[in-house]
Amino acid sequence: MAKGALGLLITGGTDNWSPERWRERFLALCPARKIVMLPDASVAAADIHYVAVWKPKSGAVAALPNLKVIFNLGAGVDAVLADSSLPNVPLVRVSSANLTSRMTEYVVMHVLMLHRQQRYYDAAQRERIWNPKIQWTASGLRVGILGLGQIALDSVEVLKRLGFQVAGWSRMRRSIAGVECFFGDEGFAPFLARTDVLVCLLPLTPQTRGILNRKTFSLLARDGVFGAPAIINAGRGGLQVEPDILAALDDGTLSAAVLDVFALEPLPLDSPFWSHPKVTISPHNAADTDADAISRDVVAQIEDFERGLPLSNVVDRERGY
Amino acid sequence: MAKGALGLLITGGTDNWSPERWRERFLALCPARKIVMLPDASVAAADIHYVAVWKPKSGAVAALPNLKVIFNLGAGVDAVLADSSLPNVPLVRVSSANLTSRMTEYVVMHVLMLHRQQRYYDAAQRERIWNPKIQWTASGLRVGILGLGQIALDSVEVLKRLGFQVAGWSRMRRSIAGVECFFGDEGFAPFLARTDVLVCLLPLTPQTRGILNRKTFSLLARDGVFGAPAIINAGRGGLQVEPDILAALDDGTLSAAVLDVFALEPLPLDSPFWSHPKVTISPHNAADTDADAISRDVVAQIEDFERGLPLSNVVDRERGY
Repeated sequence: MAKGALGLLITGGTDNWSPERWRERFLALCPARKIVMLPDASVAAADIHYVAVWKPKSGAVAALPNLKVIFNLGAGVDAVLADSSLPNVPLVRVSSANLTSRMTEYVVMHVLMLHRQQRYYDAAQRERIWNPKIQWTASGLRVGILGLGQIALDSVEVLKRLGFQVAGWSRMRRSIAGVECFFGDEGFAPFLARTDVLVCLLPLTPQTRGILNRKTFSLLARDGVFGAPAIINAGRGGLQVEPDILAALDDGTLSAAVLDVFALEPLPLDSPFWSHPKVTISPHNAADTDADAISRDVVAQIEDFERGLPLSNVVDRERGY
Repeated sequence: MAKGALGLLITGGTDNWSPERWRERFLALCPARKIVMLPDASVAAADIHYVAVWKPKSGAVAALPNLKVIFNLGAGVDAVLADSSLPNVPLVRVSSANLTSRMTEYVVMHVLMLHRQQRYYDAAQRERIWNPKIQWTASGLRVGILGLGQIALDSVEVLKRLGFQVAGWSRMRRSIAGVECFFGDEGFAPFLARTDVLVCLLPLTPQTRGILNRKTFSLLARDGVFGAPAIINAGRGGLQVEPDILAALDDGTLSAAVLDVFALEPLPLDSPFWSHPKVTISPHNAADTDADAISRDVVAQIEDFERGLPLSNVVDRERGY
């Protein structure tokens, strides 16, 4: 019996993330399986057993009658779940050690840049000013992580190793050795009240949409080393209310914002974020997972699945991640 | 019997490092001991048993006939050892967990900024360009630490945790679990040949002066992810040959230089380092130790010494650190 075909439904992406590069990688990994970019007239829809998707067009997945598994080529599945016609088969999201490590690099680097006042030193260099400022110790900075999934836990571990005071908040109760954990609606305000740097690693769900808003910012600690607190968002653009961030930076409610994600991506040329002196942006690449690693994970999971083994990282559609 | 007096020989320093602030801190910690800024006519030179020094004037320490211990208020003792009249009593250098943690923050932040191409993203933000570049994994970057003292070992540990390939070089043979260790003259070229980011944490001695020179740069790896290698110097300005750094940046032998220390400090206003696009500078504050922690360490060591206990972190004058 021929192996079930793998269909690719990939919107956009350039260079290493182009649809054609994805197809080449999958072909190299499983030469015995049919790999097609959909739609493809050379293959019957009924022969497609698996799809690997990135921002698929609404309805495209539903057109495949014998689909067994949907693989999302990233950790965030909000774009896929927005398709109400999505068939009820397992939806697997990427969650590789590779992706986790990259997010940790991003989080640790930006917490350190805030802690060590790097933007002050950048400006001092431009202005030829030799003036070291008083530097507090890492133990004087309270980092708060919104979201305590697998990715966040790795960041927590390294931040603690560096000496920061780390706490976390999650929707459901979690318990992590050595980390102050807050949860649920009632834990949100106390968590914010002890946080100088808020790092957002939440998935985008109806419950988390817009969670980074004026009210949230106003509840952050105001007695910290920075004076005003700072935020880092490496989750999804939909988690943040962008006019609220700008207003909070301008009225001093926030001292800095580090943003990897935006409501509209690519960030429009006329966005005030580009040139705001308190904003550091990056082009949604905090955890730009190695496409090779993702491809290997998808292929390994298909092979496990065909041997009757369980799939990993299956999305709970009720929770949304 | 009155306790031996502590004399302070502190040149320069502002704010928290001003001579007067040092005196206040020592007075607060040991109200029963005489603490004076030297020279001070109110105290006989013979009553000074201890000095705490920072860049003391040549000959000033030798004028104290009953000196028992010299405490240097920093990790680098090159300025003190340059005084050939220095009496032959134990010379103690600061080496606190506090100082080590700060240096680790600096090293880890700058290695991450190089690894994650932060200066490219800074420029892209200024130019409103949304263009994520291919990002290699940390395991693709070979970090080489020059110097494997206590401070360096902490950096090594965190860099390894983040996934970097870390090796170290030291003058004497050292062995560290999980770290490729090179040593001595014969180990220098092989160490450089496998290094993409060279981090210099050496003490300044006659053997290490000028070690960051054109020859050294030319031996670094040229097959790495950056193309050309990068250097980070958080040791001493005297370790680097500054015209060689500029020439190497300009002809592509080096891709970037991160410098915390300089031949002349404060860095002169007309130095080309200030505005060089491939240079990141900081005002010799990579490990600006908490002065409170240093004061406590000095006082605790004096008390130990008077109880007949051994001193810690005594400098080997032959080695120079």
